[in-house]
Amino acid sequence: MSIPEDHIAVEIDALARAARAASRQTLSLPTATKNAVLARIAALLAEKKLAIQKENAKDVAAARDQGMAAAMIDRLTLSEAAFAQMIRGVDEIIALADPVGAIEAMRVRPNGLMVGRMRVPLGVIAMIYESRPNVTIDAAALCLKAGNAVILRGGSEAIHSNLALAAIIRDALSQEGVSPDAAQVVPTTDRQAISRLLTQEENIDLVIPRGGEGLIRFVCERSRIPVLKHYKGVCHIYVDKDADQEKAMPIIMNAKVQRPGVCNALEGLLVDEAVAAEFLPKVVRELRQAGVVVKGCPRACTLSADCLPAADGDWGREFLALELVVKVVAGFDEAKAYIERYGSQHTETIVTENYSLANRFIREIDASAVMVNASTRFNDGGQFGLGAEIGISTTKLHAYGPMGLEELTTRKFVVFGEGHIRA
Amino acid sequence: MSIPEDHIAVEIDALARAARAASRQTLSLPTATKNAVLARIAALLAEKKLAIQKENAKDVAAARDQGMAAAMIDRLTLSEAAFAQMIRGVDEIIALADPVGAIEAMRVRPNGLMVGRMRVPLGVIAMIYESRPNVTIDAAALCLKAGNAVILRGGSEAIHSNLALAAIIRDALSQEGVSPDAAQVVPTTDRQAISRLLTQEENIDLVIPRGGEGLIRFVCERSRIPVLKHYKGVCHIYVDKDADQEKAMPIIMNAKVQRPGVCNALEGLLVDEAVAAEFLPKVVRELRQAGVVVKGCPRACTLSADCLPAADGDWGREFLALELVVKVVAGFDEAKAYIERYGSQHTETIVTENYSLANRFIREIDASAVMVNASTRFNDGGQFGLGAEIGISTTKLHAYGPMGLEELTTRKFVVFGEGHIRA
Repeated sequence: MSIPEDHIAVEIDALARAARAASRQTLSLPTATKNAVLARIAALLAEKKLAIQKENAKDVAAARDQGMAAAMIDRLTLSEAAFAQMIRGVDEIIALADPVGAIEAMRVRPNGLMVGRMRVPLGVIAMIYESRPNVTIDAAALCLKAGNAVILRGGSEAIHSNLALAAIIRDALSQEGVSPDAAQVVPTTDRQAISRLLTQEENIDLVIPRGGEGLIRFVCERSRIPVLKHYKGVCHIYVDKDADQEKAMPIIMNAKVQRPGVCNALEGLLVDEAVAAEFLPKVVRELRQAGVVVKGCPRACTLSADCLPAADGDWGREFLALELVVKVVAGFDEAKAYIERYGSQHTETIVTENYSLANRFIREIDASAVMVNASTRFNDGGQFGLGAEIGISTTKLHAYGPMGLEELTTRKFVVFGEGHIRA
Repeated sequence: MSIPEDHIAVEIDALARAARAASRQTLSLPTATKNAVLARIAALLAEKKLAIQKENAKDVAAARDQGMAAAMIDRLTLSEAAFAQMIRGVDEIIALADPVGAIEAMRVRPNGLMVGRMRVPLGVIAMIYESRPNVTIDAAALCLKAGNAVILRGGSEAIHSNLALAAIIRDALSQEGVSPDAAQVVPTTDRQAISRLLTQEENIDLVIPRGGEGLIRFVCERSRIPVLKHYKGVCHIYVDKDADQEKAMPIIMNAKVQRPGVCNALEGLLVDEAVAAEFLPKVVRELRQAGVVVKGCPRACTLSADCLPAADGDWGREFLALELVVKVVAGFDEAKAYIERYGSQHTETIVTENYSLANRFIREIDASAVMVNASTRFNDGGQFGLGAEIGISTTKLHAYGPMGLEELTTRKFVVFGEGHIRA
């Protein structure tokens, strides 16, 4: 699938222009039409399952030949369960309220002019992602529901699967009278295609990369288009001296153990020195019993024989595994300084019964989600009530935290006058 | 003021790091402290006026020596009027409500977890601007009021003025116990300094360029940090066949003539063919009488002898002068297609009494402000009730349209639990 570089440029430019043209149609589609497209996608997924799985099998076979790790092959495979989940995901997006067209904060100015803000689609969104072909359906469904056109660029390892899924989406669009260019898969797996895509600031409004840090940095360094991203989740829990330890223990266990491989899992535990002697040995013991490797500061290691000494590189590390660091701190200020230094602005929790300290934590800690007495695992679009999410942003522009349908829109000003002129 | 390149890199990196450190203090400053800083800035501006004007005179003299155009020298000069306006601007920002800390949309999830969104400062904002030294005060005051640290990089032609104004701001910060690094002026005028600044994505959260298209493109092409910008304002008015011509005439005159050199002035007039024979000659005559050069399509030229034939390059041009294009269109669809092709997503107005067409225009036209029966000149933070504005964004991420205090903030999630864990 390698084609000459100038050919790629021509092809990508045409694709971006076609997306822009389609976005002019999708921006004002009625909700009923968008839902009808999504319902057809769900129906076609069920209908064409065998054909899609056949294409998927080509990707899986190639991945095996190349010696891809079993976990990666697992993510690549469109199993029965993965298929059912894809279809359920589309149905859930159909059920979400359409944010487009809502007018917020309509006010009358002193001169009688009415000024409000209307939610409108962003326009054209480029998704750049790796391995999981189900993202093709999830991302397209969310972008289309919010009235956007979408350009999909999955990993080369999933190209056959992604093209088959894209064909379904385009069929569904056509059948409802919507331009199929509202959802396009970049047909080449050449990385030049990404670089070229990232220069199309006239025709693409937003880029969302999803994948490893390498992919995200590649995108950020080249993009002239705004990027929403999150690099990593290095989440902490601070157990204050006024913590209810009965609450602290399950929160910590849940945050670390329930699903250690995800971005909102706990990676660092901070314990106030006033309660460390009592609480730290208990929590380390429980963590060890759950199979967690606990690495601590010298004081933590003194308090608990189950603690291994942490290496310099362990502080601020995203383990994504049954492993974490524990540190004894002198109080709130040291915990805050630690989080400022090692946190990734993802999720930070304080466990405390102290009202004023909880308020300070909420106000002063800079992260996409700051929590009191709750597991870090709650930082998730579904858990927060946003519905399906397209990612979690740890940068602050436009969206900070989980991004749902609303984050795939923006607001324009609408003005109703009666012949108003400016004095 | 030329210094070696590696020295610039070291200096800029240190400056960005200092800004980040200061932003950790400013993010949770009480409103009273922020207002006290601003009040001191206003007081010091009055107190040190002569000293600042002396520094400004150096810039003005250098600009004269270099043969700078009179209009540019005018913008560079801190006259008595400009000084009074700067001080009044700071007072207006003191009077604005502080958006930081407000919690919106607090909801109780089915499991009892409370989830809301708190307005928080963006962090560190870099302003890159040209010529007008008053931007140093306006931008710093707005950024500080919203709890941000700010890095200011004005034009080389205003360097003495900007350093003198920055000294005032830093004095005011110190006197109120706030780190003076919350407002820093880049001390070198070397363009390498901008390039280096734009790589500091770890320590700068947002870049706002203000100036000519050249400066804005320079910034966009190099920045790894999100940029809020507007390239140009190519605004249109569409006079529908159902327009109240008594309203249309003053709206058009106001939009074109009241202040032709600004981004929300009218640049293109579209007239429905059904009313063109009646309305077009009248409006062209009025425009001509006000000194406006009117360039039209062939049909417009046939209808009015005062119309000059438009050249190809006139369509979509930002004249910023007493000049505009007029085109006869077959109706709404042609007007919409024209705006899609030639508009700059700034401000678009329809003049009509037709309810359904007004609704279609509002919904289907993609611009930061869409208006019915009102002058395009209203697209302005003050006119929209946002208070002082830091610019107008014509890109859609984060802000679309005038940007006030609120657009200098973002929202993080705040979560209140009672020992909640995820199932």
